[in-house]
Amino acid sequence: MDDPKTKIAIVGWGNVGRGVYDSIKTSLDMELVGILSRDPQRVITQLGGDYSRIIKNASVPEDVLYVAYNCKPDVAILCGGSKEDLPIQGPYFANFFNTVDSFDTHERIREYFVKMNSIAKETNHVSIISAGWDPGTFSLERVLAEAIIPISSPKATYGLAEKGGLSQGHSDAVRKIKGVRDARQYTHAKQDAIDLMREGKGFCLSAGDKMWRECYVVLEKDSPEERKRVETEIKTMPHYFDKYETRVNFISQEELNKNHSRMPHDGLVVTAGETGVGNRALIEYKCQWDSNPHATGSILVACARAAKRLKSEGESGAFTMLDFPISYLSSQPHHDLLDRFM
Amino acid sequence: MDDPKTKIAIVGWGNVGRGVYDSIKTSLDMELVGILSRDPQRVITQLGGDYSRIIKNASVPEDVLYVAYNCKPDVAILCGGSKEDLPIQGPYFANFFNTVDSFDTHERIREYFVKMNSIAKETNHVSIISAGWDPGTFSLERVLAEAIIPISSPKATYGLAEKGGLSQGHSDAVRKIKGVRDARQYTHAKQDAIDLMREGKGFCLSAGDKMWRECYVVLEKDSPEERKRVETEIKTMPHYFDKYETRVNFISQEELNKNHSRMPHDGLVVTAGETGVGNRALIEYKCQWDSNPHATGSILVACARAAKRLKSEGESGAFTMLDFPISYLSSQPHHDLLDRFM
Repeated sequence: MDDPKTKIAIVGWGNVGRGVYDSIKTSLDMELVGILSRDPQRVITQLGGDYSRIIKNASVPEDVLYVAYNCKPDVAILCGGSKEDLPIQGPYFANFFNTVDSFDTHERIREYFVKMNSIAKETNHVSIISAGWDPGTFSLERVLAEAIIPISSPKATYGLAEKGGLSQGHSDAVRKIKGVRDARQYTHAKQDAIDLMREGKGFCLSAGDKMWRECYVVLEKDSPEERKRVETEIKTMPHYFDKYETRVNFISQEELNKNHSRMPHDGLVVTAGETGVGNRALIEYKCQWDSNPHATGSILVACARAAKRLKSEGESGAFTMLDFPISYLSSQPHHDLLDRFM
Repeated sequence: MDDPKTKIAIVGWGNVGRGVYDSIKTSLDMELVGILSRDPQRVITQLGGDYSRIIKNASVPEDVLYVAYNCKPDVAILCGGSKEDLPIQGPYFANFFNTVDSFDTHERIREYFVKMNSIAKETNHVSIISAGWDPGTFSLERVLAEAIIPISSPKATYGLAEKGGLSQGHSDAVRKIKGVRDARQYTHAKQDAIDLMREGKGFCLSAGDKMWRECYVVLEKDSPEERKRVETEIKTMPHYFDKYETRVNFISQEELNKNHSRMPHDGLVVTAGETGVGNRALIEYKCQWDSNPHATGSILVACARAAKRLKSEGESGAFTMLDFPISYLSSQPHHDLLDRFM
């Protein structure tokens, strides 16, 4: 290979951006060439004055483009949110760079794929979308398991650890309630649902059948009435909580800072069915992460490796993790993969 | 698609061949066009006189070729053994057809890949080799997990079920001992090894640390001396048993037929490490099969789908399950995969 290092620009400096940053540091074949952020000072503060890599992401597109071009990245890893950032940044950056993102609004992935595919094809770039663990590796495991065990229906659940899995989206939703100063939401898997999934009887399980939710809430002003009001508001919140069994705990900011500052998450995909007739078959894929954004960051970096490879082979357009060979995620040469992993 | 059905010829009528046969029956996009066997009468007996699909596999290559050509298969699934059959049949059939096989002599996969690749490239065919669950999906999971969790070392173990997993190779080895009429060997996982693997401390575990072996043996002539002799011969058998804790049970043929006629197997791949620094990360992939050959058969059929697809895209050469997109294993259109599984 002429240039063994994959040059990465990180676009967006939130939790996932930092996950990508840490992952690049432990990947010998990766090189960070730029970080684009709306708030460069925050990046500088966190990275301890490593100015050379900090590039202002002004809101004027031309500025962004100018600085991004200056980094000459092989791949821009887009670390923004799926709601506000990626629907704009994805199509925008796909015009100029190979991209990888973790767009995770499941019901809009098809639409996003079509849009990204058309831009990336037209401008001759590779855009790997919806990379992460769900969507991402879990998607891959669902497709793999269903292809192997026909007439099965892969089912997923989350929060197997005792503490459960921290949901950023649900924590945000609780924090937006008036009178709430801070909050965390943990998702918990229900064991009886997992048992049904393993027996191949999980077809009709709703999200509320599979999981329950636990909130840790810090109030602006604590009082029995306030607790009552906030608890009711949480439990009846449409979409987020109303269909789930939910427990609400009120704690102090100190306790929250002390016990709930990490972002663990986990999940399980279960596929149960038969091979041939009457031969039970079961596949389970489980992942457990101390830091959810670091997990996503790590997967994004592996996908950046694949994006560069696809591009070097003359490919263009949008890809998901279903759409390229698994070996492209690895930094190892093919003959080593055959020797070590086959 | 002009011809939606994938036409399959089964080459070799053993347990895996029957697994493939049953899998094709439950795959709506597959069509069986031929079975090639050294013993056509056995096929006819087992399939209840479905003559049209039975094709004699004479030992003269020209005959095989003639009948195989007459089936016009898109893909020939080679169901022979890795020791005697595939090293000859693989390279031979790759000259004339797209092939899929489950070559599973781990230490020779690289050499086999090179050979199959050169023939298949030259004759413009696609040959997917070493498909199954190990090598196969387990290989894929190892590569995927190591790409996501750097500086980890995926470790596998087998026989988690209470009864353990039936090893065909070890059963054969015991059956070859003088005085043994019939035998089964179950592999059992050791829980303490799994615990170490989950803690990321499984690096140095040997196969004997991870598993123990249990034999059920029917003697030609039962006696205390004979039991002693056979048990010693088993426990000291190089490579197969000498490095393992082994238990030997002597039973009657009736008991063996009644309780040990199925071929269950299972396995687990554990990858433990960190994402970023200090964030523990754990991925586990487990599969459990009532019928090991049906599992392999099912995976071979999914890979036949991929072989046809690769060929239709102008590809040629050898592939493992690491080397093509997972979506190619599925019978579902891409937009449905995005909607249902992403």
